[in-house]
Amino acid sequence: MADQYARSGDDNRPAGIPAIRWDEPPEGPVLVLLDQTRLPAEEVELVCTDAPALVEAIRTLAVRGAPLLGIAGAYGVALAAARGFDVEDAATGLEAARPTAVNLAVGVRRARAAYRAALAQGGGEKQGAEAALAAARALHQEDAEASARMAGHGLGLLDELLPGGGHRVLTHCNTGSLVSGGEGTAFAVALAAHRAGRLRRLWVDETRPLLQGARLTAYEAARSGMAYTLLTDNAAGSLFAAGEVDAVLVGADRIAADGSVANKVGTYPLAVLARYHHVPFIVVAPVTTVDPDTPDGASIEVEQRAGHEVTEIAAPKVPTAGAEAGGGIPVAPLGTQAYNPAFDVTPPELVTAIVTEEGAVSPVTAEALAELCDRSRQVTI
Amino acid sequence: MADQYARSGDDNRPAGIPAIRWDEPPEGPVLVLLDQTRLPAEEVELVCTDAPALVEAIRTLAVRGAPLLGIAGAYGVALAAARGFDVEDAATGLEAARPTAVNLAVGVRRARAAYRAALAQGGGEKQGAEAALAAARALHQEDAEASARMAGHGLGLLDELLPGGGHRVLTHCNTGSLVSGGEGTAFAVALAAHRAGRLRRLWVDETRPLLQGARLTAYEAARSGMAYTLLTDNAAGSLFAAGEVDAVLVGADRIAADGSVANKVGTYPLAVLARYHHVPFIVVAPVTTVDPDTPDGASIEVEQRAGHEVTEIAAPKVPTAGAEAGGGIPVAPLGTQAYNPAFDVTPPELVTAIVTEEGAVSPVTAEALAELCDRSRQVTI
Repeated sequence: MADQYARSGDDNRPAGIPAIRWDEPPEGPVLVLLDQTRLPAEEVELVCTDAPALVEAIRTLAVRGAPLLGIAGAYGVALAAARGFDVEDAATGLEAARPTAVNLAVGVRRARAAYRAALAQGGGEKQGAEAALAAARALHQEDAEASARMAGHGLGLLDELLPGGGHRVLTHCNTGSLVSGGEGTAFAVALAAHRAGRLRRLWVDETRPLLQGARLTAYEAARSGMAYTLLTDNAAGSLFAAGEVDAVLVGADRIAADGSVANKVGTYPLAVLARYHHVPFIVVAPVTTVDPDTPDGASIEVEQRAGHEVTEIAAPKVPTAGAEAGGGIPVAPLGTQAYNPAFDVTPPELVTAIVTEEGAVSPVTAEALAELCDRSRQVTI
Repeated sequence: MADQYARSGDDNRPAGIPAIRWDEPPEGPVLVLLDQTRLPAEEVELVCTDAPALVEAIRTLAVRGAPLLGIAGAYGVALAAARGFDVEDAATGLEAARPTAVNLAVGVRRARAAYRAALAQGGGEKQGAEAALAAARALHQEDAEASARMAGHGLGLLDELLPGGGHRVLTHCNTGSLVSGGEGTAFAVALAAHRAGRLRRLWVDETRPLLQGARLTAYEAARSGMAYTLLTDNAAGSLFAAGEVDAVLVGADRIAADGSVANKVGTYPLAVLARYHHVPFIVVAPVTTVDPDTPDGASIEVEQRAGHEVTEIAAPKVPTAGAEAGGGIPVAPLGTQAYNPAFDVTPPELVTAIVTEEGAVSPVTAEALAELCDRSRQVTI
């Protein structure tokens, strides 16, 4: 039943295809996604005309990244309402598309609550649909604003830590506009430095096993005209040793109450290298990433992913090998067991600062983080 | 003119195809190589009937690894002599096949010197050929013996450092029988621990960009019946943090007089992680790897390799994309610049011990290394 179709970018499109956008062509409202599974080989838009199409796009990782999933979920509810489908069914399906993605559920619930409130106030389906769309647009806008504020605070901190300018920044995984309603988290800081003429180079870790750095961050850096260089994750040590890294900027999947940072696997070794070489290690994430219910790093459950992500290579344009476990090209002997944690945990003592939309915390302590979260809640209320 | 052909392994072959072997079928002597470019997908033997065929095999990396290249070079001279080709021409061609591989030239010269000496003593072509072959066989045998001695010294050190047994060893790149006339360097130590029932697990870094760990070390570990697990290089940090690594064992490409170790890129970050987690970091290499003419780490020139090794994925069975720079599958945007050092340098203060066939040096100092080299020379004389 899912109704989605691919549309290639044409020459009249703006320089950057947004990761997500709402459109209202004559044939009815649609949600248009940049298909991230086909980057960087092709820029193809995926047009969703109903919620099941969006569920499929979420499952195939055509759309991904915590904040962006929240926005997508909210628009998905608005799409169901605008097209006259059952909104409650659509919301249930969307929430279940990736059950571990908290932001997705939060986005879905926010749009559904707006829809229900409009109906409860005596409005019809049209008013309900308008309310859901307004809620999705508000979330989208808030996320963009949070990105901008993180970028501002982050650049301020960089300039303070490295007064000479000409920053050479190392980043890991993908944290730009492909995961956000705005320009992202860590990447947004690097982009702000670039625009201010103070980014000398962005070092891009390829980020095995799924190569989000090579595929997505390099794509975003190229699209933004930044001076960037790609490297294998294990070559970062040579850069530090050569004095070529002034700061490390990474995002976060979850931050425990004590300031322990769960992020893409490979983040922790960078933090250890940064400490050994006296280089600032900066985490950039919205306040919602701080989870007061997770007391410390040891309490963070680390997702173990399928071994075939390591034993096989899957990439855009790599023809699938059919019979293989993950559909990729095998690079290790058949039957090889792999250790494949999705992320790792960096203890607060290795983190120079955590930058949020509400400001930076440095040094990283449980007290300072709690105060920041309280301030954020007061602003929201 | 090169005459080589592929021969697939059959079910009657011994459990392990050796990386290199001399054979004398009725149609004349041949040098048989295990084609390493096709591992682990296929075990195919490459049969060389003349020196140009071997040159081609060296250039395409069908045969690789410093000690093994020396042995191959010596056998190549013997092959030319046995087949009645011009030995001086063959030797010149072989030496130039990979000009930076010191061992290759050393092996070639040793067999050629034996050939020349036999002729100078009034022998004919037959005696010259026999002398060259004897020299190649001696080098092959010496390398195997050096491997065995390194394995013995390394296992002794492991048992001393980790008296409990049940060693969980992390290794990087490929250092086993595929690069050696014997069982290799670091891998040989792990194998000795396995045979002694004291290896609980071998953690195998995949070793980007060329995946020697995934392709070759995993293959050797599987063939040896070791308990091994493959990981992306950036996941090693999580293993250290979880206390799952008891020791790191790596090889070396060159060791400076001060004990600085040049080895495959990704070695240095492991040394920093090992230090941070108080885990022994052990380098295993023959005495010939110590270069007294290189005073320190800063004097080691680091080879920068082509960026397409990072921006494209090349692996056995990956169909080539034809027009691409490296013939692999692109994973980064076109035009992406890559930083791709072939190796990195670990300073002596991060190295717990250097294990050679003459014994172990710990702590690693210029004086201790010089003494070891002197002892080795006395033994040789």
